[in-house]
Amino acid sequence: MEYILNLLKLDEAEKAAFTELAGDSVQVFAPGGAELTATDYEKATIIFGYAPADMVKLASHLRWLHSGSAGVDNYLAPGVLREGALLSCSVGAYGHTVSEHMFAVMLAIMKRLPAYRDAQANSAWQDLGSAKTPEGARVLICGTGDLGSSFAGLCKALGSETIGVRRDPSKGAAGIDRMYSFAELDGLLPDADVVASFLPHSDDTVKLFDRRRLLLMKDDAILINGGRGTVIDCDALAEVMAEGHLFGAGLDVTAPEPLPKEHPLWKQPRAVITPHVAGGDHIPDTAHKIAAIALENFRHYLNGEKLRNRMK
Amino acid sequence: MEYILNLLKLDEAEKAAFTELAGDSVQVFAPGGAELTATDYEKATIIFGYAPADMVKLASHLRWLHSGSAGVDNYLAPGVLREGALLSCSVGAYGHTVSEHMFAVMLAIMKRLPAYRDAQANSAWQDLGSAKTPEGARVLICGTGDLGSSFAGLCKALGSETIGVRRDPSKGAAGIDRMYSFAELDGLLPDADVVASFLPHSDDTVKLFDRRRLLLMKDDAILINGGRGTVIDCDALAEVMAEGHLFGAGLDVTAPEPLPKEHPLWKQPRAVITPHVAGGDHIPDTAHKIAAIALENFRHYLNGEKLRNRMK
Repeated sequence: MEYILNLLKLDEAEKAAFTELAGDSVQVFAPGGAELTATDYEKATIIFGYAPADMVKLASHLRWLHSGSAGVDNYLAPGVLREGALLSCSVGAYGHTVSEHMFAVMLAIMKRLPAYRDAQANSAWQDLGSAKTPEGARVLICGTGDLGSSFAGLCKALGSETIGVRRDPSKGAAGIDRMYSFAELDGLLPDADVVASFLPHSDDTVKLFDRRRLLLMKDDAILINGGRGTVIDCDALAEVMAEGHLFGAGLDVTAPEPLPKEHPLWKQPRAVITPHVAGGDHIPDTAHKIAAIALENFRHYLNGEKLRNRMK
Repeated sequence: MEYILNLLKLDEAEKAAFTELAGDSVQVFAPGGAELTATDYEKATIIFGYAPADMVKLASHLRWLHSGSAGVDNYLAPGVLREGALLSCSVGAYGHTVSEHMFAVMLAIMKRLPAYRDAQANSAWQDLGSAKTPEGARVLICGTGDLGSSFAGLCKALGSETIGVRRDPSKGAAGIDRMYSFAELDGLLPDADVVASFLPHSDDTVKLFDRRRLLLMKDDAILINGGRGTVIDCDALAEVMAEGHLFGAGLDVTAPEPLPKEHPLWKQPRAVITPHVAGGDHIPDTAHKIAAIALENFRHYLNGEKLRNRMK
């Protein structure tokens, strides 16, 4: 018998599928989870969805958490997850939404739309000069899992050349023309028109884009971050942009997050900041993809099989 | 013998090709044309490029004007072009630049990037809610020549369904899934997620999108104009948007143009206005495409053959 907290946003068919699988176990459906109390978490043996780490800490009977998110660094922090509990995530559900948002940001920067938006506030009908095109652009993508590979596919659809960087370059990835290892990154940066990171947070990725590597990029390159904010040193980025480096930077993630009110990137006209909204449930198909992964994993769990996207 | 004013922006190879074709004729190369005087225009028998209509009026010996633009309504106005002079244009050179700019504007609106830009001015890290995706969206494209057909191709690359409207629907167009006539437009508007106009200015297209047709669109549809500004009644658009109609509107062209400082569309947060910059020479390949069309026509002219893109 399980005590299940289901925080996923489900349609009727998905809810029925979860109910059927749960059998006689208790399953509390609480989309978003806002109304769940400490008592609920204390009883929980299974949690589906994106539960606050502070509440997960209270789950002293937890056997398995399937997160609705792709990144799970918040749950991997010491003292959050009960020792011995399984952790899986929803990697695979976010490629479409995140890549499309970051692609829109990249195109907007290429066409100077942020500056035109600023001009619109002054009712200013003024040509701001040359634009860029993805056609023929060399796009360097760091992190070529679901997010990076999806982003690469969009760039290729508009005629870009796509270069990937991943730990094991022999694996390749859909949408990537040529794959390299991280050891080769510094040599690739000076030739890229766009550098896009979809890397997760880890000891290896923190501040991978420090001042030195940012300066290795072309003066008029575009930097995109749709992975984790810690991968780019935001203070260094603000500095080099203030010095005139880079055509633009599009960040859906920052470090810290939220970006502090006084951070200079907010006022850097060539920086485009969106508040970690590329993913989440901003377009309808993401929730359905998360539900499908969670249901697949629920079957695996009940059958004692290996979980998909197991992180711990 | 001709007296040629060449206002095109050319690279060395293109300039050499024009020089060779001109033979013993005089050819004044004046990229952009800013330094040309009334006397130059009075002598001109051929003009290549985008010359001001006021100056073209002075060209009393003109035999042929090949415009660097796609639309030539300014030259077709009474009293501009010498009676009997030929007029051709550069239709075909702008599909890439215009469609890509308008596609960037459409995606930006779908992802609420204009509103996030406004929030950035206040250093506000705030989720503004659901976004839209081109995947599965029904995009209705009015005018399916070079611009509209290119735009359709971009939408299809990201998974949209494309519906076209043109005078002769039996012709079809690349990138368009299904083609209809203008007589069917009113029936198509209520089902479109995006309505994009790439129509030229003509008696038939002026204010095609009046208040009535704008209200036929879905309440949360997106309107795009990358053709001529007169096709949409901008006053009616401002009104219906102020009433809450439409998810957004992206206009690179307006009527009048420039949009007057006091026009309410400037301050409509869901309107995105760029100052007729989708075309022009904002990305490098456009100038090369214009030069290629002009050179092709120069050969036709010298051989007494039919001009490509002849407008008069």
